[in-house]
Amino acid sequence: MDCHELSETKVKSNTVYQGKMINLRVDQVRLPSGRTSSREVVEHPGSVGIIPIDKDGNAILIRQFRYAVGEVLWEIPAGKLDPGESPKDCAMRELEEETSYLAGRLEKIVSFYTSPGFSSEMLHLFIGTDLIPGTGQPDDDENIETYRLSREAVETMIENGEIRDAKTLLGLATVISRGLF
Amino acid sequence: MDCHELSETKVKSNTVYQGKMINLRVDQVRLPSGRTSSREVVEHPGSVGIIPIDKDGNAILIRQFRYAVGEVLWEIPAGKLDPGESPKDCAMRELEEETSYLAGRLEKIVSFYTSPGFSSEMLHLFIGTDLIPGTGQPDDDENIETYRLSREAVETMIENGEIRDAKTLLGLATVISRGLF
Repeated sequence: MDCHELSETKVKSNTVYQGKMINLRVDQVRLPSGRTSSREVVEHPGSVGIIPIDKDGNAILIRQFRYAVGEVLWEIPAGKLDPGESPKDCAMRELEEETSYLAGRLEKIVSFYTSPGFSSEMLHLFIGTDLIPGTGQPDDDENIETYRLSREAVETMIENGEIRDAKTLLGLATVISRGLF
Repeated sequence: MDCHELSETKVKSNTVYQGKMINLRVDQVRLPSGRTSSREVVEHPGSVGIIPIDKDGNAILIRQFRYAVGEVLWEIPAGKLDPGESPKDCAMRELEEETSYLAGRLEKIVSFYTSPGFSSEMLHLFIGTDLIPGTGQPDDDENIETYRLSREAVETMIENGEIRDAKTLLGLATVISRGLF
């Protein structure tokens, strides 16, 4: 496949905002046709999500308020990469911070872009098993509740539309289809 | 479940950017503990994705360059809601614009937040069947290639990590698990 004819090239770049989680730039680009257009890009460092499965075969899910959507959501433990941090190290850290567990086994299952129309965020999903107690604590500005849920309970919640977070839906669908949960 | 103890309330809001696809605001919020923190919010109007299945049981996927991630991606047809537009009308419009097909049947399968840590975007996924030729054309600044792919081909691409877009992975996993593809 020759991709050159689809590519867009940067003509000019304007950083609008540099923040704690994201940056925003608005670039002028040249389209394959030769015309120019603008592209809004949210720069994100990347993130991880972990599906923790305990020794009884339950998934550990969390509930937290998400200010950007104004709702409390059911999610898997997740977080963004620190500078220089590997996805696997980040997954172990976030799992401990958000659930107080460490995973004896942590395996990557899939990586994907969360919203490539405007955001650079790539999210790496892991399954975590052989859980052992750690000493983690949520960040100061995170308020999190943790729950253990059977596969049957999770499937009912998915069917009822109670789980509305993309990484959580995709992670659960993947481990269920592979017989890992 | 009492959600009040998880909620965060707005103290002050600062709009940093208003653009063609997204806006950005940075809010000061009060946490359940009484402390304050800041939250970066990308305001997005919401979007749709469509899994078009033709009469031979093939899915129609597209390839397009995504400037925010600097790659050509395999995706389902998708796009953002126009002001006042219903998700279903948007799905029909985007399907026609990006594949030149209309769907005789268009059914919602799931809705989810794409990245609720910083973005308000909710995406509504549809399956489109009974496809008939339309007259659609991509937007001026969209360059799109369309492909028909069997379920076996798609499953191989997923296994090989060739599909790296969240909505596409989740949509395909959902229609495969429900026996619709």
